[in-house]
Amino acid sequence: MTAATALIGIGLLATQDDALGEIAGAAVVTAGEQIVWVGPAGSVPEADDQVDMGGRAVVPGFVDSHAHLVFAGDRAAEFEARMAGTPYAAGGIRTTVAATRAASDDQLRANLAALAGELLRAGVTTFECKSGYGLDVATEARSLRVAREFTDETTYLGAHVVPPDIGRDDYVALLTGPMLAACAPHARWVDVFCERGAFDADEARAVLTAGIGAGLGARMHAGQLEAGRGVQLAVELGAASADHCTHLSGDDVEALAASDTVATLLPLAEFSTRSPYPDARRLLKAGVQTALATDCNPGSAYSTSMPLAIALAVREMGMTPAQAVRAATATGAKALRRNDIGRIAPGMRADLLVLDAPSYVHLAYRPGVPLVAQVWQGGRRVV
Amino acid sequence: MTAATALIGIGLLATQDDALGEIAGAAVVTAGEQIVWVGPAGSVPEADDQVDMGGRAVVPGFVDSHAHLVFAGDRAAEFEARMAGTPYAAGGIRTTVAATRAASDDQLRANLAALAGELLRAGVTTFECKSGYGLDVATEARSLRVAREFTDETTYLGAHVVPPDIGRDDYVALLTGPMLAACAPHARWVDVFCERGAFDADEARAVLTAGIGAGLGARMHAGQLEAGRGVQLAVELGAASADHCTHLSGDDVEALAASDTVATLLPLAEFSTRSPYPDARRLLKAGVQTALATDCNPGSAYSTSMPLAIALAVREMGMTPAQAVRAATATGAKALRRNDIGRIAPGMRADLLVLDAPSYVHLAYRPGVPLVAQVWQGGRRVV
Repeated sequence: MTAATALIGIGLLATQDDALGEIAGAAVVTAGEQIVWVGPAGSVPEADDQVDMGGRAVVPGFVDSHAHLVFAGDRAAEFEARMAGTPYAAGGIRTTVAATRAASDDQLRANLAALAGELLRAGVTTFECKSGYGLDVATEARSLRVAREFTDETTYLGAHVVPPDIGRDDYVALLTGPMLAACAPHARWVDVFCERGAFDADEARAVLTAGIGAGLGARMHAGQLEAGRGVQLAVELGAASADHCTHLSGDDVEALAASDTVATLLPLAEFSTRSPYPDARRLLKAGVQTALATDCNPGSAYSTSMPLAIALAVREMGMTPAQAVRAATATGAKALRRNDIGRIAPGMRADLLVLDAPSYVHLAYRPGVPLVAQVWQGGRRVV
Repeated sequence: MTAATALIGIGLLATQDDALGEIAGAAVVTAGEQIVWVGPAGSVPEADDQVDMGGRAVVPGFVDSHAHLVFAGDRAAEFEARMAGTPYAAGGIRTTVAATRAASDDQLRANLAALAGELLRAGVTTFECKSGYGLDVATEARSLRVAREFTDETTYLGAHVVPPDIGRDDYVALLTGPMLAACAPHARWVDVFCERGAFDADEARAVLTAGIGAGLGARMHAGQLEAGRGVQLAVELGAASADHCTHLSGDDVEALAASDTVATLLPLAEFSTRSPYPDARRLLKAGVQTALATDCNPGSAYSTSMPLAIALAVREMGMTPAQAVRAATATGAKALRRNDIGRIAPGMRADLLVLDAPSYVHLAYRPGVPLVAQVWQGGRRVV
């Protein structure tokens, strides 16, 4: 029999499970990698070990469903220029492409390991990781091979921008042909940056359709810089998530609300590009499943801080703290079509955060303060 | 002879010293509590110990010249209500007053110790600490006694709001009489919250004048919620700092520019009260000495994160990263009239931060990421 560990003395447990709700004065029992019992502290069953949380709040491990972590170099100079007034443009991606192509696998691996460590210490127990800084067959494929060493949630994003050394049509043919063939074995998802300066809706359709045909699930970057056709295309193709959703038409919102496609908001990108924030309240009111993710990448959002994304969602986007935490956990899991993570309930993976605070509200109330005191992943304390 | 330690391999050293400037490829030598040498790595003198910074950036320890850290309880519920639309008002301070009066010295000490630890891990090597949640003679005096255990930069802020149990005139008489007498031995500074809902300019003048008469230096909360007479009064009375400065008239800016009074901006308060940010660029253009501080307090800014204050100053207030770091170090020191901290130069106290980044720019470029990898305080590594 697997040894059971009881986490007792939880001040406020935010399960994100509709049946269990929030429990003040809670306990959680884990066995192996799973949660086996959740309830009020007074009725906790006996376990082999007991760990006292001392009245601190517990939330599910964060699920970061949108991150670009395989790259070399940084773009601090571009950031500085932007803060001095230069607007953000998708073309800056090409700077990172040059550095990434020139980097060895070990360099890419070391950079990703550092970022994965940051994510874990910030409470992210599951993260998605995109390619998209290679933009040639070999570099995209090795980006995904390296990413797969760190996460199962790997995403083929050859369609990030058109690289300077090839024509558009030739590149779409490459994306949907040889590059897809080389990348699909290492990827779970296919994604496309559908935006002015990147790919239009017809190109996006071609890329996602080919990816789906190769057995990948679809995701989409859409509505970051302006409302376009991307969001409705994502819904039409059954994408798990439409990401950014900063600029949305009324039809976009309706389409999302009627679909299984999650709207994933990325406020760290608006922070670091000094752009207007998306209106999360509008989405939630319309019944759209709304997730939060970091968008960690060296150009527009070089942050691994899911807690800051939560604080920004509350400060800038009209989410309540409870909605923001749900968006960073249960709905993030939905954006990855995962039903084993993002909630604290029997049968779920034992991915838990212990906060140095009596409530998850403090994630927004205490911005910038590293409140993630413990990280439990698959039933083991790892931070 | 005191043993010397050479910190070598510094990627970019931002000294905040006008003569030394920024040095790429630098070294710093400390002996005892002081810095004894600063210069290019190639010409570093011999030392007893060498510590390699591995190309990481070094900046002076942050100086937090505005914090309210002696209190009990929190105001998470008020924060949640505010985020749902209730406007911020100074009156909420009274909630914390009730909890603080009821708390033992040991409870106040434990809370302050926790916050001081957070500040240190966030890179703050010197912090100011105000009273202001007692508002009776005994609790104000013991607040300052407890604060003095942690910092020399203690500030008597009996004039935070008028407590509910006493008339205005009687309270000003208490502030300038028995309460001042009980508090002055434990304080370096006197401060007043000159704002609608707190104290008007005539009351503020009475409080500061009495404090100055008792040997304290003056500081002032002014211009947080609206432009008033506070800023010019602070200048007139020779206050070291006028704090908040969110709402300023043209005359206010001119008065500050022509004075030795620092304008201390507190963007974490604007963040947590969802208020418009001050215009730092306007102040810097006019030649005003402009500092950044946390304003850490349980009502309007429950954060110890000077790095987030820096990121907000860049994102929201028009500072460059270099200006923001200077505001959090050298100009913060000026706001405390300290000439032994806030810069990295021979003769200064060896308070240094090693960042997990090649440049201080990353403090703004990587918001929410805990980049402070090492903290050196008085020549010893403490984090």
